[in-house]
Amino acid sequence: MSAVSQTQKSRTIHLGLFHQPLGRHPAAWRQEAAQGHPEDIDWVIRVARKAEEGLFDMFFMADNLAGPEPGAQGKAGGLEPVTLLSALAVATSKIGLVGTISTSFSEPYNVARALASLDHISRGRAGWNVVTTQSDRAAENFSLSALPDHAARYARADEFVRVVRGLWDSWADDALVMDKRSGRFLDTDRVRLLDHKGEHFSVRGPLNVSRPPQGHPVIVQAGSSRDGIGLAATQADLAFTAQDTIEDSLAYRAALKEAAEAGGRSSYLKVLPGIMPIVGRTDAEAREKFAALQEHTDIAAGIRQLSGRWGYDLSTHPLDGPVPEPGERIHGESRVRLLLNKARAENYTLGELAALAIASHGHRIIIGSPETIADDLQFWFEQGAADGFNLIPASMPDGLDDFVDRVIPVLQDRGLFRRSYAETTLRERFGLGIPRLGAFAS
Amino acid sequence: MSAVSQTQKSRTIHLGLFHQPLGRHPAAWRQEAAQGHPEDIDWVIRVARKAEEGLFDMFFMADNLAGPEPGAQGKAGGLEPVTLLSALAVATSKIGLVGTISTSFSEPYNVARALASLDHISRGRAGWNVVTTQSDRAAENFSLSALPDHAARYARADEFVRVVRGLWDSWADDALVMDKRSGRFLDTDRVRLLDHKGEHFSVRGPLNVSRPPQGHPVIVQAGSSRDGIGLAATQADLAFTAQDTIEDSLAYRAALKEAAEAGGRSSYLKVLPGIMPIVGRTDAEAREKFAALQEHTDIAAGIRQLSGRWGYDLSTHPLDGPVPEPGERIHGESRVRLLLNKARAENYTLGELAALAIASHGHRIIIGSPETIADDLQFWFEQGAADGFNLIPASMPDGLDDFVDRVIPVLQDRGLFRRSYAETTLRERFGLGIPRLGAFAS
Repeated sequence: MSAVSQTQKSRTIHLGLFHQPLGRHPAAWRQEAAQGHPEDIDWVIRVARKAEEGLFDMFFMADNLAGPEPGAQGKAGGLEPVTLLSALAVATSKIGLVGTISTSFSEPYNVARALASLDHISRGRAGWNVVTTQSDRAAENFSLSALPDHAARYARADEFVRVVRGLWDSWADDALVMDKRSGRFLDTDRVRLLDHKGEHFSVRGPLNVSRPPQGHPVIVQAGSSRDGIGLAATQADLAFTAQDTIEDSLAYRAALKEAAEAGGRSSYLKVLPGIMPIVGRTDAEAREKFAALQEHTDIAAGIRQLSGRWGYDLSTHPLDGPVPEPGERIHGESRVRLLLNKARAENYTLGELAALAIASHGHRIIIGSPETIADDLQFWFEQGAADGFNLIPASMPDGLDDFVDRVIPVLQDRGLFRRSYAETTLRERFGLGIPRLGAFAS
Repeated sequence: MSAVSQTQKSRTIHLGLFHQPLGRHPAAWRQEAAQGHPEDIDWVIRVARKAEEGLFDMFFMADNLAGPEPGAQGKAGGLEPVTLLSALAVATSKIGLVGTISTSFSEPYNVARALASLDHISRGRAGWNVVTTQSDRAAENFSLSALPDHAARYARADEFVRVVRGLWDSWADDALVMDKRSGRFLDTDRVRLLDHKGEHFSVRGPLNVSRPPQGHPVIVQAGSSRDGIGLAATQADLAFTAQDTIEDSLAYRAALKEAAEAGGRSSYLKVLPGIMPIVGRTDAEAREKFAALQEHTDIAAGIRQLSGRWGYDLSTHPLDGPVPEPGERIHGESRVRLLLNKARAENYTLGELAALAIASHGHRIIIGSPETIADDLQFWFEQGAADGFNLIPASMPDGLDDFVDRVIPVLQDRGLFRRSYAETTLRERFGLGIPRLGAFAS
């Protein structure tokens, strides 16, 4: 027993579940054993409870703000993150609940409020993955003819997050006194105006909900561009990232650390690369599993995805030829660079890159037995290339169930993962304290 | 048993619970038996489940978009409607879940999506109370120096609701086919662009969530101004209203009907006035209960509330003098008119009007035994002045519990209220079908 408590005190791996109701691999949903529905709340509750059974730090939801293109096939539909996470807040009790919200198409007051409310409902388990959205199609759903450029989006995002943090600080902790005898409902000395007047927003405040239990819900940032690193370094608690090699991930961490220190920030920013593990009882079985998925991969869809990222139509280029250079208007600078580096390092043809890109959307695929996968994660962790991982199941439910039932026990046996939830809030789970009021004011 | 089913088929009263976590009466929370907290999800779940036990049609949440003014006392804090209702969606199974969202400070794509998601999560129990917001303080939280004027807000609201309905119609029912064998995930013939280009919004669509189970969540409108009636007549399924006399309510219904018919709309718009019942075992006990509440009423707070509505400071006017005329910039035209009519009819002093206004915010107070209250509701219902009522508990938990435990059985015995939930969706409960695609297009 003492070994267990000791293990829990030492540094262990953090794990997020990147919610993929039907698995990330585009061919996964068609497999015979596949289950899941993008809009069935009972399914999502089952998934979140399995992740909670696996003692994951958090349930993580990505987002996009455009519907299916007419005529285009592919997965579509899905529940909106804040509503979904609010439902999960009462259907789970321990796991963190992190949702993606774009700063490009919302108002900071609405976002600060929704996340504060989610934090109250979940009793301190809320998190926000801050994104700026890369899609012109999304912009056209919000009365814009085109997306503002990258730098403009990040400038707005920076101010947006500062306003949201300021609103969370517009009530001090415990401002709601509700003293029946004196009739004092509110300690008015503990509520203040924000009076923010900036380039993009002017927000008076205070917020209409009290300070969240965590002070500030956990902030995640997932962009690896220079602007993304800048935002993460000044504002984020966690960085979710796509990194293909230990060297790249170490370089990314060093860049984050440097940017954080340049901004006078000393707190330690946790880095969680995405991983798509394919778990078999043996390495051979795992390879067969992946081959079966890849066999049904729609290369044309992979070319369409790359075309979107590259900024022009790649379908006229030969599949067995080299990977062409990206265009001028790329989407997702850091992901494009990652794919391009990979193609060059492995001498991939365009078709090979398309098949790989569509399998995991650029995240690292790990194929093997539970021990092989644990070895890989342990190596990354011990090399300092990751504080943990955001698990992206290739197929469901096995992509999650196999990891929880087979890989997690191996990590636990090695003292690399918790055996029970020790903390109440998500911040505590990441070793973060409640921010003091105004700590992020500028 | 046959009497019961017959009763359920005949026209019966609809009931909403206007959620007041601490009771509506400003003195209620200080009473010894008072319970509740504005931000405790367990408390809200207890309240919603009691309303569900009472077979209420819906749980209704009002909203405001400004926090407490520095230095001002009064109730403050509270959970955000969409997060709260999403949590209730998994904590309840039958009751409708209606939230207030302003059209002045949100984007239609976000609102359409959140409500569609809530409708999926609740399996067809979502509703939207459309408001335009009356507060300058709210505008200052959204980068506006002042609120757009009444007509401009309603013009935006009208377009906003049409865009939201259009987005709900951008997927036909059952567009998600998810056929493993053929690989068809989506029936692309059943998804279409919206391509809305209007005065306030340009929205391409389609939505990124499939058509809600109800087709369109139930739409509620609560403004009684000419513009409010216009919006209700063209867009709403239900009207929530403050009406003090049967004559006023009949006139309001007639105005709604006339406006609906002028707009070529034949469907029947249900009218639910707000009521604040004070239930005692006897009429005398109920009167004592109300007197005990009024005794602790803060007349100064009532004067501040009236000042806000009247558009200027009334605190320099004598409390025992007549009620002054409203100013030029009133807030809530219809509510001001209602209060003014009441003051003139009853010859109230300014102080008396302030005490009454602050007790229920202008909604009708009914004081008496369960039978007295049932008599009153039955009379309104049978006169055609109401299709039901939105219950605004004066104090909690007794304001809800007494109604559920004592008044509802009387209504049931008279054949005026359901004995079980017969319908699955909120629309069905109000006798509304799923709107055909494009029925609200303009």
